[in-house]
Amino acid sequence: MHKHFINTENWAQSELSQLLVDANVLKNNPHNQLLKNKSFALLFLNPSMRTRTSFEVGIQQMGGVAVVLQPGKDAWGIEFNNNVVMDGDAEEHIKEVAAVLSTYVDAIAIRAFPKFISWEDDKQDKVINAFKKYANVPIINMETITHPCQELALMMTVKKHLGVVQNKKFLMTWTYHPKPLNTAVANSGILISSKFGMNVTLLCPNENYILDEKYIELATKNCESQGAIFTITHDIEEAYKDADFVYAKSWGALPFYGDPEKEWKQRRKFQHFMVDEHKMSMTNNAKFSHCLPLRRNIKATDAVMDADYCVAVEEAENRLHVQKAMMLSLFGEKL
Amino acid sequence: MHKHFINTENWAQSELSQLLVDANVLKNNPHNQLLKNKSFALLFLNPSMRTRTSFEVGIQQMGGVAVVLQPGKDAWGIEFNNNVVMDGDAEEHIKEVAAVLSTYVDAIAIRAFPKFISWEDDKQDKVINAFKKYANVPIINMETITHPCQELALMMTVKKHLGVVQNKKFLMTWTYHPKPLNTAVANSGILISSKFGMNVTLLCPNENYILDEKYIELATKNCESQGAIFTITHDIEEAYKDADFVYAKSWGALPFYGDPEKEWKQRRKFQHFMVDEHKMSMTNNAKFSHCLPLRRNIKATDAVMDADYCVAVEEAENRLHVQKAMMLSLFGEKL
Amino acid sequence: MHKHFINTENWAQSELSQLLVDANVLKNNPHNQLLKNKSFALLFLNPSMRTRTSFEVGIQQMGGVAVVLQPGKDAWGIEFNNNVVMDGDAEEHIKEVAAVLSTYVDAIAIRAFPKFISWEDDKQDKVINAFKKYANVPIINMETITHPCQELALMMTVKKHLGVVQNKKFLMTWTYHPKPLNTAVANSGILISSKFGMNVTLLCPNENYILDEKYIELATKNCESQGAIFTITHDIEEAYKDADFVYAKSWGALPFYGDPEKEWKQRRKFQHFMVDEHKMSMTNNAKFSHCLPLRRNIKATDAVMDADYCVAVEEAENRLHVQKAMMLSLFGEKL
Repeated sequence: MHKHFINTENWAQSELSQLLVDANVLKNNPHNQLLKNKSFALLFLNPSMRTRTSFEVGIQQMGGVAVVLQPGKDAWGIEFNNNVVMDGDAEEHIKEVAAVLSTYVDAIAIRAFPKFISWEDDKQDKVINAFKKYANVPIINMETITHPCQELALMMTVKKHLGVVQNKKFLMTWTYHPKPLNTAVANSGILISSKFGMNVTLLCPNENYILDEKYIELATKNCESQGAIFTITHDIEEAYKDADFVYAKSWGALPFYGDPEKEWKQRRKFQHFMVDEHKMSMTNNAKFSHCLPLRRNIKATDAVMDADYCVAVEEAENRLHVQKAMMLSLFGEKL
Repeated sequence: MHKHFINTENWAQSELSQLLVDANVLKNNPHNQLLKNKSFALLFLNPSMRTRTSFEVGIQQMGGVAVVLQPGKDAWGIEFNNNVVMDGDAEEHIKEVAAVLSTYVDAIAIRAFPKFISWEDDKQDKVINAFKKYANVPIINMETITHPCQELALMMTVKKHLGVVQNKKFLMTWTYHPKPLNTAVANSGILISSKFGMNVTLLCPNENYILDEKYIELATKNCESQGAIFTITHDIEEAYKDADFVYAKSWGALPFYGDPEKEWKQRRKFQHFMVDEHKMSMTNNAKFSHCLPLRRNIKATDAVMDADYCVAVEEAENRLHVQKAMMLSLFGEKL
Repeated sequence: MHKHFINTENWAQSELSQLLVDANVLKNNPHNQLLKNKSFALLFLNPSMRTRTSFEVGIQQMGGVAVVLQPGKDAWGIEFNNNVVMDGDAEEHIKEVAAVLSTYVDAIAIRAFPKFISWEDDKQDKVINAFKKYANVPIINMETITHPCQELALMMTVKKHLGVVQNKKFLMTWTYHPKPLNTAVANSGILISSKFGMNVTLLCPNENYILDEKYIELATKNCESQGAIFTITHDIEEAYKDADFVYAKSWGALPFYGDPEKEWKQRRKFQHFMVDEHKMSMTNNAKFSHCLPLRRNIKATDAVMDADYCVAVEEAENRLHVQKAMMLSLFGEKL
């Protein structure tokens, strides 16, 4: 039994598979009282619609209480560094925030996007790790520099459509967006597909868009241990060819992290990475998905989004089911 | 059984009357479990106090779950047009928003005020109609260019005080406000009073302040079909004379829509339309109401607001009861 | 049975003691259904984390419904003065807000900080008193110019650690902060400690930092009636010497109220009032607390905050328990 759900890295494939089995049970029987008398703080340092609604509804469908907090907006700014003379904006230190919230609620879920100034800094995932350190209750990741809830929803969707996933070709493709976005969902995409033994291809415009080595190494190791292959390519045709599942996400180039103007000079050349019908026609009749939100005709065309093979809404729905399964597991509740 | 509650236009008077009967039952017995296991997304594109509180409390009084969302604030901006290259502010298309929310909740309630740039555009009520088109669950109007929940609350209040309402004189009076406001409640005021066969008088400063022809035609037809009379006047004395119920609202002149400075030059001349004791003394001992919020000594005097004949607070209370009756009816729940 | 919980001033010590007894029962048995079918509006005119979470969770742990409202943000601005031509920002008068909310919910809890322009004005506590006047349901103070919920949490903590509190030395010490803060918690600190018969020492940099005479007089009278002593000092050593409980808070000097620059010239000289280990070593093995949020190494050092004698988190936890006890008492519910 895991105490936290911060990353899937330290969860065994069998444990994650069990969560997906439970999620399918909950999909058919959404209501129970297994979280009765349990309360959750949902801490959004960044906005959300799907995450917020699916957590709020999911918790209450199982008899629990959800309190939504938006620090800096509904509440005080928080200091995350130690040994600091707090004469800046933050009125409160994470030590107290985490300790006090732990006395009010039974679990704390956190959304904390990177600050996009220094990747070395953001890579440490300070906010959620500080909560893990100073809180006394389970911590749940609602997206930081990874998005493990999305991973579960994605794999539930992949399994539903591919059945056996071992050695099926999973394409994680970079796609265009006007802004340099978070790498979280891309990191998570290659982590979960490799964990389940898929042959994973990471398609990105050039070497500047390769994800952080930590995630590349983890995905490579996952694949190796399962007799699967992890590949990086910048060749669109090669990448789409025979793909069984296409997963798209836009992200900013890490070498230009914190310098959006310089990064933009790179990125604007790659608008043709948008997912379209032609690219999808090269696949092995693949399903397409994306974590949402998605800018139509920027990241993927209307035709792709409206096609039968687009399962993005189904994946979003699965967020509700997998999160419920995960929360039950943190409290040792069996279905 | 109606799927949506977007406008009262397509509801029969008998159906609306049943809702009012149910609302009176709920007023006396507010708690039940008829919405158990039902969840509602309350989507506020504009702020609210009464609407939000009455929906949140009402849903929970019947065992349901309410999730409050404020897109553009708690969540992403939404694109409502089709076939658009989404390179602007919106991160997400209504197609996905509506489809995904439909998988999380059992109904979606929406507040979406006009943008006040083009009445031709606002008149299409695009936001709520897009939700109706792309969502798979009941859609509820919490005020767009009409305010059907307010209509029910108003008619519950009118019936309580007038008993038989057929052919009673309902005065819908324009009143002053420093800004050119939404016509929603005025449109709704003449729709519901005419639907119930009242003789409806619309009082406004001049022809520029006449409501959109759609609502004038609907109200006229409603009156005709019930042997009642629909009148437009700019004469204050004529309007108030023998009125049985006075309903006030301020709104902007449609010919100057999107041009607040030009509209202001008109409106500022009509501060004397404020409802006061002298005007009320010309009526047939009428009750006075307003949908709230109301600026005292601008829209109506303190003396009017504090008089026994002011039933604005009662009408606001009735929002709770009628909305609960309406939500039950959307799910086919009988009291 | 009190209708409101606005200030502890008009509550007898025995009544407050009973609330603390109940709070201890609730600490061990947090869940019940004593607030079933009761709904609460939590009105935050200022942000909050602890107060919001503890009220939301506490109400739901007893079967009630909590609706969080943030006027001016989630809702309209409110006018609190009478006989005003409302041509400013406020769209709505407190008379209507309070009357309408009273029809939706069973109690209204309010956080309304001073405006920091005129103490003569802020001292009247207009917002909460207006709700008291115009609402028909119990009103709860979630911090205005006093913070009675914090008082209960503090005294629960003090009693836990000191056992008998009569004639024990309670030090209320001013401490530094970059901004001139609200006097609410300091007012409350001397009110509740004196109400329970402690010898109260108020330590502040100079006479400009003495609290409003109303609270000084009340605390003095409380002490006198219990055979205890109320002292004001500007001598740090004298103040800390033999203290049994040290309670810190920063606040702005009242003579410079509304003039932060002038006040700053005073305040910046008093950074040495920060609570540190040396000061604590002069006490009678005292516990230390603060209401939180607390800027570390500004108001108190890391060493003090991380020491075993720091009970600030425990005090914060007690907010949950005392507030639940207080809400039950307003509805005459016995444990």
